[in-house]
Amino acid sequence: MGKGRVEAFTDGVVAIIITIMVLELKVPHGEDFSALLPLWPIFLSYVLSFIYVGIYWNNLHNMFHTVQRVDGRVLWANLHLLFWLSLMPATTAFMGENHFAPVPVAVYGVGLALCAFAYYVLVVELRHLHGADTTFAKAVGRDRKGKISLAIYIAGVLLTFVSQWIGVALYVAVAMIWFVPDKRFERLIEK
Amino acid sequence: MGKGRVEAFTDGVVAIIITIMVLELKVPHGEDFSALLPLWPIFLSYVLSFIYVGIYWNNLHNMFHTVQRVDGRVLWANLHLLFWLSLMPATTAFMGENHFAPVPVAVYGVGLALCAFAYYVLVVELRHLHGADTTFAKAVGRDRKGKISLAIYIAGVLLTFVSQWIGVALYVAVAMIWFVPDKRFERLIEK
Amino acid sequence: MGKGRVEAFTDGVVAIIITIMVLELKVPHGEDFSALLPLWPIFLSYVLSFIYVGIYWNNLHNMFHTVQRVDGRVLWANLHLLFWLSLMPATTAFMGENHFAPVPVAVYGVGLALCAFAYYVLVVELRHLHGADTTFAKAVGRDRKGKISLAIYIAGVLLTFVSQWIGVALYVAVAMIWFVPDKRFERLIEK
Amino acid sequence: MGKGRVEAFTDGVVAIIITIMVLELKVPHGEDFSALLPLWPIFLSYVLSFIYVGIYWNNLHNMFHTVQRVDGRVLWANLHLLFWLSLMPATTAFMGENHFAPVPVAVYGVGLALCAFAYYVLVVELRHLHGADTTFAKAVGRDRKGKISLAIYIAGVLLTFVSQWIGVALYVAVAMIWFVPDKRFERLIEK
Repeated sequence: MGKGRVEAFTDGVVAIIITIMVLELKVPHGEDFSALLPLWPIFLSYVLSFIYVGIYWNNLHNMFHTVQRVDGRVLWANLHLLFWLSLMPATTAFMGENHFAPVPVAVYGVGLALCAFAYYVLVVELRHLHGADTTFAKAVGRDRKGKISLAIYIAGVLLTFVSQWIGVALYVAVAMIWFVPDKRFERLIEK
Repeated sequence: MGKGRVEAFTDGVVAIIITIMVLELKVPHGEDFSALLPLWPIFLSYVLSFIYVGIYWNNLHNMFHTVQRVDGRVLWANLHLLFWLSLMPATTAFMGENHFAPVPVAVYGVGLALCAFAYYVLVVELRHLHGADTTFAKAVGRDRKGKISLAIYIAGVLLTFVSQWIGVALYVAVAMIWFVPDKRFERLIEK
Repeated sequence: MGKGRVEAFTDGVVAIIITIMVLELKVPHGEDFSALLPLWPIFLSYVLSFIYVGIYWNNLHNMFHTVQRVDGRVLWANLHLLFWLSLMPATTAFMGENHFAPVPVAVYGVGLALCAFAYYVLVVELRHLHGADTTFAKAVGRDRKGKISLAIYIAGVLLTFVSQWIGVALYVAVAMIWFVPDKRFERLIEK
Repeated sequence: MGKGRVEAFTDGVVAIIITIMVLELKVPHGEDFSALLPLWPIFLSYVLSFIYVGIYWNNLHNMFHTVQRVDGRVLWANLHLLFWLSLMPATTAFMGENHFAPVPVAVYGVGLALCAFAYYVLVVELRHLHGADTTFAKAVGRDRKGKISLAIYIAGVLLTFVSQWIGVALYVAVAMIWFVPDKRFERLIEK
């Protein structure tokens, strides 16, 4: 089964998710600067989520580059990831509109953790399909970065109940780790 | 007439449908867990519909793989299917926001039945275009699974007026039958 | 300049337009059949517009098949058409939500006329670019069907102020004329 | 790294942005012409933004035509541009719904300036990646038109506080400069 249509479908869904988040940036009713002020927490959550969705797109882009084929299990693992990614506009708005209150920050982190978990499942399914000695399996390696991210998200969710700013700081930290596209795949692609 | 653009257009519409359903998951106004609680029926309907749209995408993906050409009738049969699929976000929200009340559950089932009927019409048109001895016609066979699904949807709609949970259970059952992508096409593709 | 990306972009915009109209089908607040009843005029306008957008997609699909190249003028003529097409969800909702009142029906017809006019401009630009002796120019011919449609839309808009049902009937009539994809291009493609 | 998927993703996001702006054109509640009248400032802002997004699409289309490869920095420079472009529906609605009041007009201009700045960064990254002697670098040249546009946007934002119509006039002027697709790339493509 060809990977082309899966890549195109994934790109389509990710493009919609990243753009649909804008719709949450509702137009203020006033006509001066004070109308824009209440938007800043929503704007900041939107920036963070935009970077996260961009990171996922970059990593999926690089990963599918080394993928040779897909099967039904991979299709569903990919849809499973897209499901959690497509919830990000809702959790982003929840966090932004409630001005980074603890529960919304924790819910946002749970969303991030579920995306990371779904990405991990997708990697496992692809490794299972390709076998241990393939370019793909070598590129993925032990996926340490993915596992560390998941651990930080969970820490972020829990520490949010100490202070939500610890949670937000940890989510920003993971985004910064991943901001550079996944070197494991880049290294192989450049060979 | 090439099938490439029809596939791409279909994927685009399906990607939008699957993502647009998220928009119905409106952000709760409160900032603690109690604000999320009323969302659970909407969330569950969203999960079910996401799986259904995923199933249609998978089956269309596999079916178009064995398709050799399309004509005007196939284009319209495909658009007809996309029409009923694109109503799914509305019926999903109707069912979820009314907490699985009988009429919305029945309406949701009517929507599923119309999608199944439209899929059946598309298969008939494609079989008509390709002829009885082609790879396509052999892959489709007698389309028993499609006909059984349609019968279960209709049963689900009717039994909803005994108890809506019978309806929901039958819709979930059909989703589980189809969760594995259509083996008829997979078998042929893998040959 | 390649036509591939123009086709893909056009398909993307048309896919979004056709799906976004669904969003106007707002979920009724009640939970029984009486909640669905007020939706019927919106539903009917949605069906009509879905068929219209489908017709445009089919005709663009067939026309671009015989197109050999595009230039800046064609790009803008195409964007101009997409602009008026993308207003269709708004005019559709205006007509449906006001239960086919005269002014909304006339406005809907003005929208259709502007789409037809923009399609005509696109054909003129493409004919200008390709020259009189090309496959494209021969396929288009004198574009009588396009001109007749435009005339009927204008008649429909004017006669709406006698009775809006004459307007609606004329719009439905034009949709039926075009429902079969443009034979001029099909004939040539099949050669 | 291939440029194909970056082009396709960019086209997808731009197609969504250009179409999503329609959603701001809310359906009027009345059923006669007076219901449409308050829409004119929103409609005019929509037309202007549609032309701007069309210009960006045309220029990206032409620029990527001469691009030979992309790397992680280019991917992010491109996403950065898409971020500011995807805010355009919000600033457009803010300007239109407030009937071209000074602050919204200035905010709209800041949005345009940020898009222009992001486009400039993208060009710099691509020039850095391709080197000074490539087709790409020659096509871009010193990017005077881009720098002049940025200067006019900033002037427009500042002069809005003298009269917002100066701001609007300057934004329209820049749109007219760019309406013709970027000749620098066209000239090279046609060679």
